[in-house]
Amino acid sequence: MASEKKISDKVGFPPGSLIHIGKRKMEEPKITIIDYQDEQFQEKIAGKVEECFPFRETPTVTWINIDGIHDVKVIEKIGKHFNLHPLLLEDILNTTQRPKLEDFEDYIFTVLKMLYYKEEKDIRIEAEQVSFVLGANFLISFQEREGDVFNSVREGLREGKGSIRKKGADYLAYSLLDAIVDNYFLVLEKIGEKIEFMEEKLVKNPDPKLLRTIHELKREIIFMRRSVWPLREIIGALEKIDSPVVKESTKIYLRDVYDHTIQVIETIETFRDIISGMLDIYLSSINNKMNEIMKVLTIIGTIFIPLTFITGIYGMNFVYMPELGWKFGYFAVLLVMLIILIGMIFYFKKKKWF
Amino acid sequence: MASEKKISDKVGFPPGSLIHIGKRKMEEPKITIIDYQDEQFQEKIAGKVEECFPFRETPTVTWINIDGIHDVKVIEKIGKHFNLHPLLLEDILNTTQRPKLEDFEDYIFTVLKMLYYKEEKDIRIEAEQVSFVLGANFLISFQEREGDVFNSVREGLREGKGSIRKKGADYLAYSLLDAIVDNYFLVLEKIGEKIEFMEEKLVKNPDPKLLRTIHELKREIIFMRRSVWPLREIIGALEKIDSPVVKESTKIYLRDVYDHTIQVIETIETFRDIISGMLDIYLSSINNKMNEIMKVLTIIGTIFIPLTFITGIYGMNFVYMPELGWKFGYFAVLLVMLIILIGMIFYFKKKKWF
Amino acid sequence: MASEKKISDKVGFPPGSLIHIGKRKMEEPKITIIDYQDEQFQEKIAGKVEECFPFRETPTVTWINIDGIHDVKVIEKIGKHFNLHPLLLEDILNTTQRPKLEDFEDYIFTVLKMLYYKEEKDIRIEAEQVSFVLGANFLISFQEREGDVFNSVREGLREGKGSIRKKGADYLAYSLLDAIVDNYFLVLEKIGEKIEFMEEKLVKNPDPKLLRTIHELKREIIFMRRSVWPLREIIGALEKIDSPVVKESTKIYLRDVYDHTIQVIETIETFRDIISGMLDIYLSSINNKMNEIMKVLTIIGTIFIPLTFITGIYGMNFVYMPELGWKFGYFAVLLVMLIILIGMIFYFKKKKWF
Amino acid sequence: MASEKKISDKVGFPPGSLIHIGKRKMEEPKITIIDYQDEQFQEKIAGKVEECFPFRETPTVTWINIDGIHDVKVIEKIGKHFNLHPLLLEDILNTTQRPKLEDFEDYIFTVLKMLYYKEEKDIRIEAEQVSFVLGANFLISFQEREGDVFNSVREGLREGKGSIRKKGADYLAYSLLDAIVDNYFLVLEKIGEKIEFMEEKLVKNPDPKLLRTIHELKREIIFMRRSVWPLREIIGALEKIDSPVVKESTKIYLRDVYDHTIQVIETIETFRDIISGMLDIYLSSINNKMNEIMKVLTIIGTIFIPLTFITGIYGMNFVYMPELGWKFGYFAVLLVMLIILIGMIFYFKKKKWF
Amino acid sequence: MASEKKISDKVGFPPGSLIHIGKRKMEEPKITIIDYQDEQFQEKIAGKVEECFPFRETPTVTWINIDGIHDVKVIEKIGKHFNLHPLLLEDILNTTQRPKLEDFEDYIFTVLKMLYYKEEKDIRIEAEQVSFVLGANFLISFQEREGDVFNSVREGLREGKGSIRKKGADYLAYSLLDAIVDNYFLVLEKIGEKIEFMEEKLVKNPDPKLLRTIHELKREIIFMRRSVWPLREIIGALEKIDSPVVKESTKIYLRDVYDHTIQVIETIETFRDIISGMLDIYLSSINNKMNEIMKVLTIIGTIFIPLTFITGIYGMNFVYMPELGWKFGYFAVLLVMLIILIGMIFYFKKKKWF
Repeated sequence: MASEKKISDKVGFPPGSLIHIGKRKMEEPKITIIDYQDEQFQEKIAGKVEECFPFRETPTVTWINIDGIHDVKVIEKIGKHFNLHPLLLEDILNTTQRPKLEDFEDYIFTVLKMLYYKEEKDIRIEAEQVSFVLGANFLISFQEREGDVFNSVREGLREGKGSIRKKGADYLAYSLLDAIVDNYFLVLEKIGEKIEFMEEKLVKNPDPKLLRTIHELKREIIFMRRSVWPLREIIGALEKIDSPVVKESTKIYLRDVYDHTIQVIETIETFRDIISGMLDIYLSSINNKMNEIMKVLTIIGTIFIPLTFITGIYGMNFVYMPELGWKFGYFAVLLVMLIILIGMIFYFKKKKWF
Repeated sequence: MASEKKISDKVGFPPGSLIHIGKRKMEEPKITIIDYQDEQFQEKIAGKVEECFPFRETPTVTWINIDGIHDVKVIEKIGKHFNLHPLLLEDILNTTQRPKLEDFEDYIFTVLKMLYYKEEKDIRIEAEQVSFVLGANFLISFQEREGDVFNSVREGLREGKGSIRKKGADYLAYSLLDAIVDNYFLVLEKIGEKIEFMEEKLVKNPDPKLLRTIHELKREIIFMRRSVWPLREIIGALEKIDSPVVKESTKIYLRDVYDHTIQVIETIETFRDIISGMLDIYLSSINNKMNEIMKVLTIIGTIFIPLTFITGIYGMNFVYMPELGWKFGYFAVLLVMLIILIGMIFYFKKKKWF
Repeated sequence: MASEKKISDKVGFPPGSLIHIGKRKMEEPKITIIDYQDEQFQEKIAGKVEECFPFRETPTVTWINIDGIHDVKVIEKIGKHFNLHPLLLEDILNTTQRPKLEDFEDYIFTVLKMLYYKEEKDIRIEAEQVSFVLGANFLISFQEREGDVFNSVREGLREGKGSIRKKGADYLAYSLLDAIVDNYFLVLEKIGEKIEFMEEKLVKNPDPKLLRTIHELKREIIFMRRSVWPLREIIGALEKIDSPVVKESTKIYLRDVYDHTIQVIETIETFRDIISGMLDIYLSSINNKMNEIMKVLTIIGTIFIPLTFITGIYGMNFVYMPELGWKFGYFAVLLVMLIILIGMIFYFKKKKWF
Repeated sequence: MASEKKISDKVGFPPGSLIHIGKRKMEEPKITIIDYQDEQFQEKIAGKVEECFPFRETPTVTWINIDGIHDVKVIEKIGKHFNLHPLLLEDILNTTQRPKLEDFEDYIFTVLKMLYYKEEKDIRIEAEQVSFVLGANFLISFQEREGDVFNSVREGLREGKGSIRKKGADYLAYSLLDAIVDNYFLVLEKIGEKIEFMEEKLVKNPDPKLLRTIHELKREIIFMRRSVWPLREIIGALEKIDSPVVKESTKIYLRDVYDHTIQVIETIETFRDIISGMLDIYLSSINNKMNEIMKVLTIIGTIFIPLTFITGIYGMNFVYMPELGWKFGYFAVLLVMLIILIGMIFYFKKKKWF
Repeated sequence: MASEKKISDKVGFPPGSLIHIGKRKMEEPKITIIDYQDEQFQEKIAGKVEECFPFRETPTVTWINIDGIHDVKVIEKIGKHFNLHPLLLEDILNTTQRPKLEDFEDYIFTVLKMLYYKEEKDIRIEAEQVSFVLGANFLISFQEREGDVFNSVREGLREGKGSIRKKGADYLAYSLLDAIVDNYFLVLEKIGEKIEFMEEKLVKNPDPKLLRTIHELKREIIFMRRSVWPLREIIGALEKIDSPVVKESTKIYLRDVYDHTIQVIETIETFRDIISGMLDIYLSSINNKMNEIMKVLTIIGTIFIPLTFITGIYGMNFVYMPELGWKFGYFAVLLVMLIILIGMIFYFKKKKWF
């Protein structure tokens, strides 16, 4: 089931060829339709793609969510019925697509990444691609698999909480965007906790394994950065867009998401700074330890090598060595060695090696 | 009392839900009203929120200050009476909010950070969020707890010093902004003193503990930077804003605060440079110390290992070793060893190891 | 055949002199003509340059591809017939030319790089320069040698797949651009695999040879960066160009290639970050190993140097050394040395040196 | 006399309060008036501030120079008579003010820094703040103390050299600006000489004291950078200003100063690069020295430790050790040791350790 | 002859004073006049400055080249006759002038640097300043000494090759610019060769002398960068200038030089990256060598220190040491030591120290 297609599998096909790039993450695509307006609310799972076509014409707001994008035919049918540009379909299928926004007059197309923090053997931030097609009164969302960060929005729709049912498809799109960006804060919170945990460990015991974890954190932060940075531009463009699809009254909400995106980006940059600071601390700690080790060796060596030399002298077998015959020669030598020892210790104290 | 809510506690609520994020820093919100115009001046503490509503209609300038924002109901009532946008109320309640400015035509909303330098076990810069709602003739300020940097402004109002009572709510807002930015200089002054103190210590005695303090300073500077950078944009926008709320004559004062903000930012950047320079010095000092230690070991080893070898030779028990029988063999060996010793010392002198 | 001309060989000629700069990569230039429109399709290899001149006047779309640009006369003849600016011809001949776009009203000229990943003794990214002259209904492409990344486009043309035969020369140019950028992804995929392979090796066994490979990767990434960065600007300009040669309907496709270029650039930047992180890991690993080595030496030295000193004492030949005569003197000394040994081991355990 | 006021002494006062911030550098303020036009020239020292007031009305160009700004009353009186904005007076008094330009329609206000290179115990760049108020036919300059870089301008005025007396107050302002920027070149020249001197020393003998000097140079360069960078913007704005105070014909001169400022900035950036390169060299030199030391220890240890072991063997007191009785046993052992010694030396030669 | 004047020698003179700054590089200024139009061509060396004045009025294109700018009077006379602005003359005389472009309506003034690569004891890039005054039908060029990079242009003019004689003074200026920029490629080629040579050496034998050369390369690259960067702006401005002096048809040529300048800048940046990579490699190589040395010491020490200890035990002179009397005691000890030796070697093999 988890067969993976790389971008290289697509090279060699003419542009416009619809080919799914990425892992296949579920068995069968699942299509969910939510249709609402004020008091009206309907939610159903479509067995076939065709079931969602009639909703296009109704004046109510319709949210069609497709989980699983590996089935090219489903995407093609939707594309045909909703009159979507072939390049757009290509982007939906390519899960390595960079987040982007495209304005096709009748509808707006955007690709985003949902992020999940995983910590098993390694630390890893997993990305799931979500594409939105936002029309005047419909929103189609494409996800790689079941499970997302939109449950609060679904609850709001079902229970009619807040004003969401009274507003249009653009407000729905904003709510989903908001849920995605809010989820970024969750991921960052977990990374933040990990960083704090690492910092404490670093100072106490600079284990070489920490270096690996620092490197992993750094790599995942770089990865997250790539997924989030383009959002700044996307939401900024959305907020300034001149399209019948996005109402003026919705734009103030988009500005709010924009602010949150900036905050996410700033936190990412701060984390980068802190992580590179951690590397410095790690390296200095290692250096300090080395220093300490060398000091011990040097103290031991500096004390005992000269003393051993003295014992060597009186271990020589010369026939004529007057000191050897002295009665207190042995004790005199012991005394001399003691004095040298004490002198050394004072020297080290003065040098602050203890 | 110090219960803390994280941003993750808010995920799962629909957008627009009013939830306080951050630590609860005081028991009960405290509402203070200052009302003035020219000679007129009135200051009172409101027992209930409703007491401050009548001031909205009066032509005098009214400053309503709320200490403690954890009580969502108080914020909601004010929001309702003063006709504030729900997103604005959300931002007031979220103490992790990035500094921002929002122009709602009838009023201007801005979020800022007051900073305090703390040095207990660690060095820490504490932030308290302040939000301002600036209307034509009123200013509402929201703070996390009692105690702020606005006392000089309050004194000015009470005593009618300067021209502040003759000017409008926008000048009051400027005065508060000015007090916040002036306070940044205080924080920077203290960091500057700490840096100077550290620099002296670094050169004299590169203690591994200093590394920790350098890292803390660096982290707090990064933190301060995040709180101050957005101000540049905010005050810049305020100075160029086209709103009935901000008079032209006030803008020259805003330009002055803008200049100060730039100066704060430049000082922060300078401190970052200096701190990273301190890290370099620390590392080199550690390196130097290592060098010195190795030199001692090498000198001792290089002198005594060969000498010990010579004593070893004459400590061998061969039956036939002619030198052993020589009358001055022992003294000759001592002499040879002395010559080697002196030669070594000359060699080290030449190499400048002393 | 592989004679190479450097840019210095051109210095000293007046501007406008046509001189081939670079390696000569094939024997004879090869000219291929593809002419098509809807159902019509013709492909032939021209024996002489003049054979491709008549196609200029036909209303069908003509793609003239020249493999081998070292024959200045061929280039000159084409330049004359198609009325190309001398500076343009100079750029075609100079294979060290930076990617660029030039709008000559009647035609658009662009220089690009095709990249190939080679891994023999070293890792190397090879570049081949391609120049395009795009007219209203013709496209002339100049390559350094046979073999390129355009086979999928040729197949599409031959078999009439997709809509390419129904569209103009500008769509053909887009298809070729798209093939070039798609190929960059292939190169990046291979570099990505190499990086992953290196990362695993780095952690397991930090071999000094890895340092060389890291350096090679870094250098090639820098090289690739230089070839790809200007594309951003080029395709961006092409997408916004106001020229009769590029139809409005083609621009949405160009925007798609633009997005891919951005993605290529971002991946390159990410790789740079990761590679410099690898260098840090390598250096720390080396440092760790050093540490470990020093620890072994220190442990051995610290244990045995004092013990050897004790044996030295009782190896002295003083006449009067009372301990020597004791019955259990020898065993007492052995016991003392054992106690010292155990003490040392405990000390090292406490210091976590094991 | 050298009492110093910090910016923190001002916090707590309402905005607009006139307080001197900085060191008091001289006893009494000194006011000098230079008045000229074509052939006319008059220079006098004013005993009281009021003496310079009448010059405001005359059609001649008047330059009022105030040395010493700690006397708030003097500044206040001038401010009142010349109708200067209170914020401007605040900036004049605050010697930590960032260089700035403010256009008040009737007059232009600018704050700059004069820099002096000092080398006593440390290297230090001292800054003195100069503020200019440029009106239609007067220029008021405020300095912290007597002594400046304007003597060449004064000479020019006194002797009527060049065309300065024929031009207006704006040309006078340009001349002073030019003198300030020219003086930056002097400071840079001295820093450049210091850098050259350091580079030579670094290669010859990497003394730990050099590290300190490198750090000082770096810090002072950072300091200088902060004083000079804003000038770029200031002179750029001055050159493009639309004000009756600056004539068109003067702007070409301002463009020239602008160019010089850019050159100063570039030199500063180059110096930063070179200084950080010096740090690298220093660290590598230290590393090299360490290497050399370790090599000596290793060579000595590697040669003598095994040899000492051999002597140890024949120093054992076993009753039955056949070699001891051999006639040439002693010489054989000496020979073996010699062979080992020579072998070692060859090994080291091969490893290029000599 | 090689007297040098520094910028500090000029400080103290009023602005507009004409003073030569830099080294005097030749005896007497030499003035060469080339006058041409279509078939007409004349070249002569002027004995006196005045000889070139009549050419100003002729309709033919005149190129006046002055080698040697230390003679202020010559420059002054030309300035007077051609009506040049005094600031321009100042810039010509100041050889530390940053490259710049100034449009004086009737003529355009530009300052550039010709660069020469020198490798004697050190690597050095020498700069010679060239200034151009481009009028409607004349071009005056000022150089510091005889010898330049314009010979190909002179040949073209003499022999009437290409179209240069048919075009105006602006095309002549372009040709000279092109020659200067082409020459930068030559310098870069030589630096590139040096870098390649260094890289090979670095891997084979990281000699401390290489560090010095790396530093020199870095410094010269920084120097070259400063001379070339401003060109980007200058040629960019020239290409967009709206002046009667530069014809529209010449601008496409200028765009070509612009492209080359960008390429030069990019190559410089790439070289910077590679050189800083070389420093990393150098440091790691040094580190590796250190490691290797330490390994040898550790192996020798770890093997022989314990063995020597054993010999020490049996070298003690206790009266009662049972092993000493055993018949095979000596051989048993030798065997034990052999076993320890083999064990150690196995241990090192396992640790991959061989």
